[in-house]
Amino acid sequence: MDVLSIMRDLAIILIFAKIFGLLARKLRAPQVVGEIVAGLLIGPSVLGFVQLNDFLGVCAQIGVVLLMFSAGLGTNLKELLKTGPKALAIACAGVLVPLAGGTLLYMCFYGFEPWGSQKFFTAVFIGVIMTATSVSITVETLKELGKLKSELGTAILSAAIIDDVIGILVLTFVLGLKNPKTKPIQVVVSTLLFFVLAVGVGFLVYKLFKFIDKRHPRTRRIPIYSLALCFGLAFVAEKVFGIADITGAYVAGIILCRLHDSSYIEEKMDINSYMLFGPIFFASIGLKTKLDGMTLDIVAFSLLFVVVAMATKVIGCSAMSRLCRFNNKDSLRIGVGMMTRGEVALIVAQRGLDEGLISSVYFTSVILLIIASSILTPIFLKLLFREKKVKTI
Amino acid sequence: MDVLSIMRDLAIILIFAKIFGLLARKLRAPQVVGEIVAGLLIGPSVLGFVQLNDFLGVCAQIGVVLLMFSAGLGTNLKELLKTGPKALAIACAGVLVPLAGGTLLYMCFYGFEPWGSQKFFTAVFIGVIMTATSVSITVETLKELGKLKSELGTAILSAAIIDDVIGILVLTFVLGLKNPKTKPIQVVVSTLLFFVLAVGVGFLVYKLFKFIDKRHPRTRRIPIYSLALCFGLAFVAEKVFGIADITGAYVAGIILCRLHDSSYIEEKMDINSYMLFGPIFFASIGLKTKLDGMTLDIVAFSLLFVVVAMATKVIGCSAMSRLCRFNNKDSLRIGVGMMTRGEVALIVAQRGLDEGLISSVYFTSVILLIIASSILTPIFLKLLFREKKVKTI
Repeated sequence: MDVLSIMRDLAIILIFAKIFGLLARKLRAPQVVGEIVAGLLIGPSVLGFVQLNDFLGVCAQIGVVLLMFSAGLGTNLKELLKTGPKALAIACAGVLVPLAGGTLLYMCFYGFEPWGSQKFFTAVFIGVIMTATSVSITVETLKELGKLKSELGTAILSAAIIDDVIGILVLTFVLGLKNPKTKPIQVVVSTLLFFVLAVGVGFLVYKLFKFIDKRHPRTRRIPIYSLALCFGLAFVAEKVFGIADITGAYVAGIILCRLHDSSYIEEKMDINSYMLFGPIFFASIGLKTKLDGMTLDIVAFSLLFVVVAMATKVIGCSAMSRLCRFNNKDSLRIGVGMMTRGEVALIVAQRGLDEGLISSVYFTSVILLIIASSILTPIFLKLLFREKKVKTI
Repeated sequence: MDVLSIMRDLAIILIFAKIFGLLARKLRAPQVVGEIVAGLLIGPSVLGFVQLNDFLGVCAQIGVVLLMFSAGLGTNLKELLKTGPKALAIACAGVLVPLAGGTLLYMCFYGFEPWGSQKFFTAVFIGVIMTATSVSITVETLKELGKLKSELGTAILSAAIIDDVIGILVLTFVLGLKNPKTKPIQVVVSTLLFFVLAVGVGFLVYKLFKFIDKRHPRTRRIPIYSLALCFGLAFVAEKVFGIADITGAYVAGIILCRLHDSSYIEEKMDINSYMLFGPIFFASIGLKTKLDGMTLDIVAFSLLFVVVAMATKVIGCSAMSRLCRFNNKDSLRIGVGMMTRGEVALIVAQRGLDEGLISSVYFTSVILLIIASSILTPIFLKLLFREKKVKTI
């Protein structure tokens, strides 16, 4: 890897992401939208200044992990435990409705197929791609709006985390139906094991950090050890238990969220995040996009795919939120907050490609979904959080 | 590149580097020594937990760049202009004495050879490897001691920067004697051009930053644009002008050092540095070490190589510092501060290998020199800066 060209890439990404972020803010859109647009602009589709490479890819992934860790650190644990059951219900609805929606969309577009046929599984798989919420953009937007630590923010975050887990269960289950090697029961067991471990080991780790924090408050070692815990748990979650690394990072944040210095740690993480890894992550979404090789048929399917994926998520989550006694406006906010898709959708699509379930053509649909939802979610959220000003005439 | 194994590596590096850094501090050695030892311990030579890979290599390089940028930001520009001529003299002595020492060492060890023969050039090249000072460890040590911004710190830093430039001139000159393709005059011209550009464009950039800083003081955009400037100048310095990237980063820091918010920028850079990139850089020195394939002959030569390289640098720089009217103690401090060698020595050795001037066996000597000087410099510096306590009986 060429260090020099990476430093050039970083300089370009930082300048464009910041300028477009500020521009977006001027237009009353969230900064992340500007950063994604900046990535699109400097990427291979438009100006071609920067190509996504291995280094930037890893930095982008670290960016998501830091974002989720920071969100975990800022969690109000009492609030989380209170919203837990509601979040579970919202997550289930947010998986099942898009799953059904995606399956139906494919069948309406390409014709209905009998249970068990190859095309039937392809249809179901299109639904599976729609299930996984990517909450990082919502997190950043809620942070900008100052709503991340509210009951609503906690509900969205925990629902998105649970949603990830359920999404992976569904993926494994569908693949298991086609391929007898993977055993869905194993996935359920290892997921449960991870959370048991997280609670047990997490308690010991918390005690250890509390001890260090008490002896050396506000020293450099606290955020450094915390960052190590974040990376370690992200690794263990995905490598050992098959759960997404970002879930591990979020759990690491929750383990430390009741420390006396948790806001001090969060502050240091945020600086690392907004100075380098954050802009790289958001710009990389735009960088990934290649707008060639499109046919009219695929464009039409992709547009429908995007609309169905967003609508089913909003409908499923909002409806369940309403059932969980959130008011109308908050229910809609939760639905929209859960609407974003991200790299998990790409990973799922990649698995489908590997297993011969879908063709690579559908990657364009997935990328379009990621871009559209990444740009629209923050804009909708900002609109939904704008309080109506009472006119005084 | 596997994101997961990189996150595991990062977790291990952060924990070991911090624990050994703190341990070193307990033993009254600087923390960086502990971080290098941590790298050695977790690296392939001992425990084998972590292998140096592309990602870590780039991060380590970014770590040096950030360190030099931060040092530039903290520079007192008046002090630098005052110490400039002295620094030039010290740098020249610090290049010529090791160059002569290395050449003589090789000739004493393997026999004298006539001018122009292959072995003669090899001998000279061993001297060339000894010339380039790597100041990053000294910077970190002086920072820990709170002496970085003193006249002494500025003298060491600017001498090390000039030393780098002269070292590259010497390298190009020696390679030019063997190979008529590279023209030493080109190198001199492009180096001069870079510094003219740095002054001219630097002034405009400074004005631009001053304007932004005045309108938006202490906002995120200032450190982000600064970091982009740092990466950009590092890239341009090496890619366009053939000067080391760290020199470009240092110059970027100097351009911004008179900004009202320069300490604010420095603070943000330092957090990025000590949270992630710094520990990776210092640990990577240890990680690079492979202690196999050694014969008694090479071990003997390597030991002498290390001693001669360190002694000639200290003698050359200290003697010239004394001539420049520094007192005895400060002269010795400057000599020791200039003693460290780093990745530039490895790059020079690599060039010699590519040109068929030296065999890969001498890499062990270079790595030993880097480790020994990296560990000894901070220890010696700390001892030299310890004020004698007057006993009151």
